[in-house]
Amino acid sequence: LMLRSGLCRMLVAGAYSYLPLGLRVLNNIENIVRQEMNAVSASELLLPALQPLELWQKSGRDKELGEVMIRFVDRRGRNLCLGPTHEEVITDLAKNHIFSYRQLPLVLYQIQTKFRDEIRPRFGLVRACEFIMKDAYSFDRDSAGLDKNYQAMLAAYQKIFLRCGLKVSVIEADSGVMGGKVSHEFVVPVEGSEDLEIGHVFKLETKYSSLLGANFLDTDGKEKPIMMGCYGIGVSRLIAAIIEQNHDAAGIIWPDEISPFKVLVLPLDVTDAKIMDSASEVYARLQSKNIETLLDDRDERAGVKFKDADLLGISLQLIIGKEFLKNGNLELKLRHSGEKIIKEKESMIQEIARICHG
Amino acid sequence: LMLRSGLCRMLVAGAYSYLPLGLRVLNNIENIVRQEMNAVSASELLLPALQPLELWQKSGRDKELGEVMIRFVDRRGRNLCLGPTHEEVITDLAKNHIFSYRQLPLVLYQIQTKFRDEIRPRFGLVRACEFIMKDAYSFDRDSAGLDKNYQAMLAAYQKIFLRCGLKVSVIEADSGVMGGKVSHEFVVPVEGSEDLEIGHVFKLETKYSSLLGANFLDTDGKEKPIMMGCYGIGVSRLIAAIIEQNHDAAGIIWPDEISPFKVLVLPLDVTDAKIMDSASEVYARLQSKNIETLLDDRDERAGVKFKDADLLGISLQLIIGKEFLKNGNLELKLRHSGEKIIKEKESMIQEIARICHG
Repeated sequence: LMLRSGLCRMLVAGAYSYLPLGLRVLNNIENIVRQEMNAVSASELLLPALQPLELWQKSGRDKELGEVMIRFVDRRGRNLCLGPTHEEVITDLAKNHIFSYRQLPLVLYQIQTKFRDEIRPRFGLVRACEFIMKDAYSFDRDSAGLDKNYQAMLAAYQKIFLRCGLKVSVIEADSGVMGGKVSHEFVVPVEGSEDLEIGHVFKLETKYSSLLGANFLDTDGKEKPIMMGCYGIGVSRLIAAIIEQNHDAAGIIWPDEISPFKVLVLPLDVTDAKIMDSASEVYARLQSKNIETLLDDRDERAGVKFKDADLLGISLQLIIGKEFLKNGNLELKLRHSGEKIIKEKESMIQEIARICHG
Repeated sequence: LMLRSGLCRMLVAGAYSYLPLGLRVLNNIENIVRQEMNAVSASELLLPALQPLELWQKSGRDKELGEVMIRFVDRRGRNLCLGPTHEEVITDLAKNHIFSYRQLPLVLYQIQTKFRDEIRPRFGLVRACEFIMKDAYSFDRDSAGLDKNYQAMLAAYQKIFLRCGLKVSVIEADSGVMGGKVSHEFVVPVEGSEDLEIGHVFKLETKYSSLLGANFLDTDGKEKPIMMGCYGIGVSRLIAAIIEQNHDAAGIIWPDEISPFKVLVLPLDVTDAKIMDSASEVYARLQSKNIETLLDDRDERAGVKFKDADLLGISLQLIIGKEFLKNGNLELKLRHSGEKIIKEKESMIQEIARICHG
């Protein structure tokens, strides 16, 4: 459905282009994630994808990650890699910026592109080699602080997935290559397959701070390693999960906050001046009311337009066709319920504003 | 200044982390670029950094770019590279989506991370190996259409640089490895050095569409290669240029639209409850008026706070200190002019709202 509806296009297996509609969906998801992260006082930053291999040698994970990590030697002879994740880089940053208990607790996050040389389809799906992730990191004095941040993050994740129209399960998980003892996974049930993982949180404790020397001076005057947690969401992977849980036989049914546009205006005959004038006017007036609107001005048959509109899944379809020519009425179809509302132009614009702005 | 003021941190030569303040500056610049691109009807998309080398072999640029392009063979044995630019990828996309003159003109753009293995400092400055670029591409039927888009883009660039507080020169340039005949560069004069390039536009004409077979069916029923232009802005490089042109001996002076926050609240004695209560209240009330505000609640001497505030360059500094304890007055310092305004709390909040929202 993602490919058929023109959201994305595969450039090479594992790397996708986001076309304008897909990018709007991605931005809507990123904004939800951003709002919920800011609500738990996390500060956003942006770390580079290029990383010195040396950092990974210090943590010992250069061996653990093996060939999943893309590595190369640059022209200056430096051993570099593309970040499959950022624990080492953020711990190095903490080491250079956090000195005292007075700077703790602190939560940092980024929405950034990761690179992994994935060879096997896992859970029956090809995992992407380049994908966008939200990764957050908490820094605390002690395990009580870590526990508080961990719980706050679990609650924030529930809000994010709810706003994305997703039903998720939380399961206790193996912390694997990340280290630490406590870990939870957010999974989405996928038809005829194992569950498609969209979030994973870990109590890293002092694994990375000890290995990389990220210490702080505590109230008792002693130097201690910072207590850390890490919290990931596969942002680009969320799109697939949202579609998986929000579609019918005809296509996608976007949750309101995710829909790439709020309204799709469908003039059924673009050669009819009366219809097109009205479509352009309604389009401009909805836009001026800050209602994101898309106009399907393709010269296609009504049947094709209806089919594509259902496939694309924009919440509201505003139809301008025969009923308009005959009685001056516009038809509003709610993609979610299939319900139809018929009104003349002015009342319809008010009705749409009411639905979108409440 | 970028490093001293805590905007960025070097992870490894050529790759920088954006700390929270630096990321806010970057987002402000990206939003200006986005608004001006959308204003000339360009549609945003997002292309991957990972690219198949095969595409570059088709255009012949795999040899031209040489070692600047980071290449590797993945575990599936595929020859991949990290995009130093995206002409090949966008032309391949156009080839698969543009069929008829009715789909033209079209302008697409992205704000995305590029990778280049730069070995030499050019113009006396080390160029980044990982950096954020806005790259736009225009698609037209003929050279008249290309000329129109090219001129519109030149005008949009002037608006972007003006809003970024930059004085730029436009010079006719060598199109170099990009190909095409006409090219212009936007340069910023840099003290004691050659000019630091921040934008470059090229009439590519049919170079890439011919090599990669991106054709369209014209009105005369003939298949023709699409006429293309490409338009780049070094988004992350803009930050350095803005600082270069907007600073004094004490530090940065951010242009209004770029400032990471609008107001910096400076309680001069954080151990004084009366000062801190007032600072917290003013902070909350400015935030609730959608005025982005930062509170310097560090336990530092007034001298240190003033020095750091000037270094950081936020447009408005709101000082709560002795004058507040004595007469109940707050002091507003305008970083740009050094001008000071003294008012009691309520009038001061109104004054700041007037300055920020006009």
